[in-house]
Amino acid sequence: MLKIAIVGASGYTGLELIRILHCHSEVVLTSLTSEQSAGKCISEVFPSLKGRCDIVLENLEPVRIAEKADIIFTALPHKAAMEVVPTFIELGKKVIDLSADYRLSDHALYGEWYEPHLNPANLKKAVYGLPEIRRSEIKGAKLLANPGCYPTSIILGLAPLLKMGLIDLSSIIADSASGVTGAGRSAKIESLYCEVNEGFKSYAVGGKHRHTPEIEQELSLLAGKQIKITFSPHLAPMDRGILSTIYAMPTDTVTNEMLVRLYREFYDGEPFVRVLGDGNLPSTSFVRGSNFCDIAPLVDTRTGRIIVVSAIDNLVKGASGQAVQNMNLICGFPEISGLEGLALFP
Amino acid sequence: MLKIAIVGASGYTGLELIRILHCHSEVVLTSLTSEQSAGKCISEVFPSLKGRCDIVLENLEPVRIAEKADIIFTALPHKAAMEVVPTFIELGKKVIDLSADYRLSDHALYGEWYEPHLNPANLKKAVYGLPEIRRSEIKGAKLLANPGCYPTSIILGLAPLLKMGLIDLSSIIADSASGVTGAGRSAKIESLYCEVNEGFKSYAVGGKHRHTPEIEQELSLLAGKQIKITFSPHLAPMDRGILSTIYAMPTDTVTNEMLVRLYREFYDGEPFVRVLGDGNLPSTSFVRGSNFCDIAPLVDTRTGRIIVVSAIDNLVKGASGQAVQNMNLICGFPEISGLEGLALFP
Amino acid sequence: MLKIAIVGASGYTGLELIRILHCHSEVVLTSLTSEQSAGKCISEVFPSLKGRCDIVLENLEPVRIAEKADIIFTALPHKAAMEVVPTFIELGKKVIDLSADYRLSDHALYGEWYEPHLNPANLKKAVYGLPEIRRSEIKGAKLLANPGCYPTSIILGLAPLLKMGLIDLSSIIADSASGVTGAGRSAKIESLYCEVNEGFKSYAVGGKHRHTPEIEQELSLLAGKQIKITFSPHLAPMDRGILSTIYAMPTDTVTNEMLVRLYREFYDGEPFVRVLGDGNLPSTSFVRGSNFCDIAPLVDTRTGRIIVVSAIDNLVKGASGQAVQNMNLICGFPEISGLEGLALFP
Amino acid sequence: MLKIAIVGASGYTGLELIRILHCHSEVVLTSLTSEQSAGKCISEVFPSLKGRCDIVLENLEPVRIAEKADIIFTALPHKAAMEVVPTFIELGKKVIDLSADYRLSDHALYGEWYEPHLNPANLKKAVYGLPEIRRSEIKGAKLLANPGCYPTSIILGLAPLLKMGLIDLSSIIADSASGVTGAGRSAKIESLYCEVNEGFKSYAVGGKHRHTPEIEQELSLLAGKQIKITFSPHLAPMDRGILSTIYAMPTDTVTNEMLVRLYREFYDGEPFVRVLGDGNLPSTSFVRGSNFCDIAPLVDTRTGRIIVVSAIDNLVKGASGQAVQNMNLICGFPEISGLEGLALFP
Repeated sequence: MLKIAIVGASGYTGLELIRILHCHSEVVLTSLTSEQSAGKCISEVFPSLKGRCDIVLENLEPVRIAEKADIIFTALPHKAAMEVVPTFIELGKKVIDLSADYRLSDHALYGEWYEPHLNPANLKKAVYGLPEIRRSEIKGAKLLANPGCYPTSIILGLAPLLKMGLIDLSSIIADSASGVTGAGRSAKIESLYCEVNEGFKSYAVGGKHRHTPEIEQELSLLAGKQIKITFSPHLAPMDRGILSTIYAMPTDTVTNEMLVRLYREFYDGEPFVRVLGDGNLPSTSFVRGSNFCDIAPLVDTRTGRIIVVSAIDNLVKGASGQAVQNMNLICGFPEISGLEGLALFP
Repeated sequence: MLKIAIVGASGYTGLELIRILHCHSEVVLTSLTSEQSAGKCISEVFPSLKGRCDIVLENLEPVRIAEKADIIFTALPHKAAMEVVPTFIELGKKVIDLSADYRLSDHALYGEWYEPHLNPANLKKAVYGLPEIRRSEIKGAKLLANPGCYPTSIILGLAPLLKMGLIDLSSIIADSASGVTGAGRSAKIESLYCEVNEGFKSYAVGGKHRHTPEIEQELSLLAGKQIKITFSPHLAPMDRGILSTIYAMPTDTVTNEMLVRLYREFYDGEPFVRVLGDGNLPSTSFVRGSNFCDIAPLVDTRTGRIIVVSAIDNLVKGASGQAVQNMNLICGFPEISGLEGLALFP
Repeated sequence: MLKIAIVGASGYTGLELIRILHCHSEVVLTSLTSEQSAGKCISEVFPSLKGRCDIVLENLEPVRIAEKADIIFTALPHKAAMEVVPTFIELGKKVIDLSADYRLSDHALYGEWYEPHLNPANLKKAVYGLPEIRRSEIKGAKLLANPGCYPTSIILGLAPLLKMGLIDLSSIIADSASGVTGAGRSAKIESLYCEVNEGFKSYAVGGKHRHTPEIEQELSLLAGKQIKITFSPHLAPMDRGILSTIYAMPTDTVTNEMLVRLYREFYDGEPFVRVLGDGNLPSTSFVRGSNFCDIAPLVDTRTGRIIVVSAIDNLVKGASGQAVQNMNLICGFPEISGLEGLALFP
Repeated sequence: MLKIAIVGASGYTGLELIRILHCHSEVVLTSLTSEQSAGKCISEVFPSLKGRCDIVLENLEPVRIAEKADIIFTALPHKAAMEVVPTFIELGKKVIDLSADYRLSDHALYGEWYEPHLNPANLKKAVYGLPEIRRSEIKGAKLLANPGCYPTSIILGLAPLLKMGLIDLSSIIADSASGVTGAGRSAKIESLYCEVNEGFKSYAVGGKHRHTPEIEQELSLLAGKQIKITFSPHLAPMDRGILSTIYAMPTDTVTNEMLVRLYREFYDGEPFVRVLGDGNLPSTSFVRGSNFCDIAPLVDTRTGRIIVVSAIDNLVKGASGQAVQNMNLICGFPEISGLEGLALFP
């Protein structure tokens, strides 16, 4: 059994890792850390776990944690992650980092959008963990940068078009809506039930969201050219889910059939991508709790514009599920181990 | 007191008309019709009205209804409206129609998107009732076509840009999310609580939504040129509200300050348009139950693209509130009569 | 115009006072205070108010506030209220206090459930402001203790039975569910959207909720005997509303018809109580945003038990609406001024 | 591999059976039936299943279905179930019936609450499938009557008290709130999103809900005496979950500690019952998607009344999860097979 530590276990992605790994037959949880709740049982923090996972939360003492684990998932805020990851790496542990700290390969870019990077040395080792795009690199990763939620939905939505060179690279707009778990589990007025419920709003529009450079980095690699996009996030009154509606102008005429065929070929054999055709469109409802990314590519024949709609569960394919998928690749487990569960609908 | 009939009172826009007119000091309700619930008291259908509005619902017999009313609001599905509106007009009554039947001035276009038009003769008389754009025409209207909900949010969001000729007309994309009242009050599986709750989805994307020609008609008039747009509606898990995020490429460089100034000048004196600046962005929460349209125009400086975000309550500014605003203009009442109430938040 | 100050305007009951008073023709707001947001415009805190109420929030300096106001609404947490109310009273201002500080006439009881009372002297002056029970006293009140939300729903539900001596006083159980606005507007993990959404839970059951002594005080006065009840609050995933299901054993056989008749007589002429019969049952949906209390009394003929179901909007009849109703009584305004609006449904 | 048919697969309990059985290592689905959607793929009806379960729905032809299956789950409305169950039984198949048709052992009682029973002969064979109470009988069942959702939460909440004879049998009140999936998946106005959302209401109070006789039958068996209870169901705006707050007067003095100890002993070793102590209370959130029943027994020391709060997911422990638990018992599989998954929170 592979020994697993989850650093930052009292947040929503930490909990989701526990939920998923509980159904994984090859691993055992050895440590859970939480600065706020150390000394408490994880099932006091999340009573859903009672009787199934009652591990006592520890303080984050990297050396002690590392001693007990083969693989460490860091589910910390940005900056906090890069304060501990180097120690884990030095001690020869594999790290799957769910923060933003190792996603941008250019530390100067990280500095522009976040703050000065504390650990540029390890940036080169980090592999961006989107299995559909970089499966072979992931298999050998020692430090895996698990993708952001918005980026996952947008990159998977655009990859076939970019790889095939089918669109005008200056025309890309990604308009996304996220559930509220995306805002994390910290006590803020703007995340209160009554502030969020029954409302739909935009935020950080106009190129202000920190996922923008991550999206652009990966799209540029796929296209082989530098890309800038317009990315508009929205907050929807629901717990989970991201739906991205992506727009781009094709460089040549395309049809719905051509697009669906292209996407099905591109994602052929992928265990977690479903390409919808025949007028079917994704809903976050249909992926809730599962690791699927549902994608529908189509053409607006009236304007010639390509529209791609993609849906994921932000906590699963957009975070903890993808992290487990990456762990499976790194460890040589079947890629869907622990991720067999169907979406919870309704 | 002006006598009012509401035809189709047992739907959500009918109920919202009753709610708004209840606080209007110059009108009295004389007839409410409902095919499904005729004979019942409206407060049996909507117990919220009990003790305040207990009128018995009638069958839709146009002549009898017309005898009792000065102005008739038709809150019927499309087609059903144009089956009765001609009678009301012949009888000299003013009609404010909340359906789609008189919104497209070209009956052939109506035929393409809906079905053959039954009453093309009256199309010429109909005035498209967006007060911020056509206040003077509305004042003299005998047949008022009350705008659709999506079109209201999108046209108000784009009007200043089009009027000033500031954008590339082929570049317009409107990405909108609506609450579930937009689907009406009929028993359909896809509108059940458990089908809609906790999910966000797109529908009718790719130029398939029937509001598309209405939006294009009005945008084209504003621009003085034929426009085609990409319009993508989404369904959000909430009762009320539409938020539209609109994209267009400027023909010249613009700044946030220029845009805010332009919009504030354009909507100067408008009682129901609020232009947000300083990084503030609209939320449907802040207009819920009110007749406001909140608009934030801005530039994505990284791509040069203009983004306009607009929010309305689809049942108020997107339907019944705008209908009452139009009635006020037609009747010479103060434009905000009955519409003074603040948004209900939370 | 009567001059009004709202102390503690940046919470939900403060906002609701502003919303309601905005439609009141006899008053003008002269001061709004907020410790956290002083210096900001209230419409920056609550953008729903923009363009309609843009008053700048002040620090709570009681003398300065009192100079500008005839009546002062204190919408503060308990304890904070009794720190300032004495000053307002000394300065000859009428105070409507929405906190719990003046609701219990026995300061020792207050001490047991809250903390030592700082201002027992004014307790005798305070009138418990439930108009349906104490209208005449309210008219002369200088210090009005506005009832709690749960107590309003439960006392109105039981008053006719107690007044008529129809039930076994040891048999009363009140099982209530509240929307989340009842928890206020402070940043706490347990009030986050994702903690509350899609869940229903009980809290403070077993005689632990601080509204218990308030409910018992008023029920005891109605019955003319000391009463203890079992009160179980629950949290429902919605913004607004309280529904109480109340159980009691009758001392004699009763029928549904007898109960409905009794309740209709008892509440005859009351502008904000609606007694439902014929199998109709209340829903919080039907009172949302309105000052109504809907009540359905009935008998479970299989067990002989009386069941009374009552519904209010906790922010309106359970707080700010009732406060305005009380103000109307104190000032001799029509009792429904400012409260004419119909419920917002859906 | 055990071959499974699900009759009535296009409803919510049918879907939930598919979701749960998908993670069960000992079974294979051989038939899914749906009268409305026969000929369609189940993943067209529920796109969440796409790529994981794409079986074509069949018409309900009992003989053909039985040929392909070892065990048949009937997830039909009442009456429809007893029209086909006899055929399956005759053909020697084991049946787990999720309808109400075989839950009441007295066919006359069934007739009073539903309609004349069509198949009284099989009533005697039917075993009421609440494993915590009747595990040994269940193991030998040929026709298993799977308990209702409300009954499961209430019977498990009261069983220890009744078995030990600790309460006044005439004093029982069960006040329950259910999510909307309890209303099923049929197109009705009252189940529309906008009718249900943001509201909390009671329904069928006063001894009118059809689960009443089922609850009383089982409680009476546990107590060894005939019991009548007051049962009040409510509808909460959420997809899943039932929380029951149950009241009873003890015949002798009890303390919280005594109650918790009693419940923990009674449910010792049960894989799906968690008894909460130390002031912890259940929430439906913590059981969502899982087969747990969380129970907190306590005393209201002010009134001496016992209060028991219990929470389940109505679609899992209240329907399909319990059905699979029963299947495991009948087939000799580990009792938690297929039910290992943790609750989905948030």
